[in-house]
Amino acid sequence: MTRTVYVNGDYVPEDQAQVSVFDRGFLMADGVYEVVSVLGGKLIDFDGHMVRLKRSLAELSITNPLTDEAFLTAHRELLTRNAITDGLVYLQVTRGNPGDRDFVYPPADTPPTLIMFTQAKPGLADAPAAKTGWSVVSVEDLRWGRRDIKTVQLLYPSMAKMEARARGADDAWMVEDGHVTEGTSNNAYIVKNGTIITRQLSHDILHGITRAAVLRFAREAQMKVEERPFTITEAQEADEAFITSASSFVMPVVRIDDAPIGGGKVGPVATRLREIYLEESLKLGV
Amino acid sequence: MTRTVYVNGDYVPEDQAQVSVFDRGFLMADGVYEVVSVLGGKLIDFDGHMVRLKRSLAELSITNPLTDEAFLTAHRELLTRNAITDGLVYLQVTRGNPGDRDFVYPPADTPPTLIMFTQAKPGLADAPAAKTGWSVVSVEDLRWGRRDIKTVQLLYPSMAKMEARARGADDAWMVEDGHVTEGTSNNAYIVKNGTIITRQLSHDILHGITRAAVLRFAREAQMKVEERPFTITEAQEADEAFITSASSFVMPVVRIDDAPIGGGKVGPVATRLREIYLEESLKLGV
Repeated sequence: MTRTVYVNGDYVPEDQAQVSVFDRGFLMADGVYEVVSVLGGKLIDFDGHMVRLKRSLAELSITNPLTDEAFLTAHRELLTRNAITDGLVYLQVTRGNPGDRDFVYPPADTPPTLIMFTQAKPGLADAPAAKTGWSVVSVEDLRWGRRDIKTVQLLYPSMAKMEARARGADDAWMVEDGHVTEGTSNNAYIVKNGTIITRQLSHDILHGITRAAVLRFAREAQMKVEERPFTITEAQEADEAFITSASSFVMPVVRIDDAPIGGGKVGPVATRLREIYLEESLKLGV
Repeated sequence: MTRTVYVNGDYVPEDQAQVSVFDRGFLMADGVYEVVSVLGGKLIDFDGHMVRLKRSLAELSITNPLTDEAFLTAHRELLTRNAITDGLVYLQVTRGNPGDRDFVYPPADTPPTLIMFTQAKPGLADAPAAKTGWSVVSVEDLRWGRRDIKTVQLLYPSMAKMEARARGADDAWMVEDGHVTEGTSNNAYIVKNGTIITRQLSHDILHGITRAAVLRFAREAQMKVEERPFTITEAQEADEAFITSASSFVMPVVRIDDAPIGGGKVGPVATRLREIYLEESLKLGV
């Protein structure tokens, strides 16, 4: 089956889904994105992703192309057309196509570009890795200074992912000034003596939608949460480690560089948080 | 006249110049670029730009799509088709279109994407601003850590350019750890007691092709050159300031934030370097 892709209001076959070479997204990485997970045909944390999308757009003064309702309709239309039960919906908004290249922004009435597509991931919530955990390696965080804006400037996270693979690991944790910022496309956590520790929100990290939900569920379950930076050494000496993201939910981490975490086995806190997150998110899915 | 644009070997009308939404350049800013100036129909410093392009591609393990000779042929073809005498040729190479989105690089045999287009700039070498100079404002440098690779991650420089405009200036000089790195799309220089001072090459700045040529011409003309970082305060107390880039050549700077430089008038060193650069580059143009 040929996938159907949304491009500026049209639903087109994926091999015809194109944008102008003059699009600001292509020439200047001047765009933002969101990824919404789909489980059992339901969109997970859709409202949270819409809130963050609008914040990213506002931070960059990019026009929001659709209402939340229209975004939801388009998401559902793509799920139907592509028969997605489990998977992802990716959306990207750029500052549009001014018809030429200039560092100066185009006139404010230049229409933004909006593209959306799906990825089928059957059994997304049953990833075998959740039982065995990921290994991560530490790399220097070389990204720009506004990681709270979810831009398409993903070259460095992509390079870090490749370095992780080259070193035999599943992902990389990025380190700045001695402290972990986050994973290549996920937030990072450790657990010590029953307390969940994760870096506080700032310009240094993505404000994860899954992060917000997991911390809320953790607090509701009377777990202790500390939002502060931690080092790789502290992480290696932790009882557990894990990451959260829209597509991996809660994923245990059992090795950081050469050190096994919690004896190299998936721990109870990550396991429990994954269960709670999947259960609660499914209930709230739209 | 409709401009002709080069897209992966084809010459197409600009409104048909498109790339896939799955192109790594569009989804992940995974691409690099070069801009070559054209004066009197001649390509300026073409070989230098080819050397830097190959370095950028090698740093990112992106396949070089063409030989230097084929690049030169394509440049000339675009100049002819678009009747360009003075202007620019822009080229961008990305890691290509894997047909889907993944942080992991696509297979190495995925063809890179190459697009090229021209911009007509009649009288490019006679910019009136060269007589009156630019004003610049200082902004924090929030870019990623590998500015020596000429990637399309240009959102922050574009934001800085807009901030400069909002503050009534022509451009912004970016400052990191108290020292000027460079302008939004140019290298930065000051002149004090006859010595030209500019930041040394590192991962912190672009390795300007025009920078290399201007410093060579300056040394050949027995001018003193010091390659080291400088502060905004030092710049404000300098005798002259200027920038270099492929499209602005040598452009005097006469104001930094609220301070006029050299009494707010274009100075002799920048003027002389601009003359030498244009004269020598034109002789060497191809």
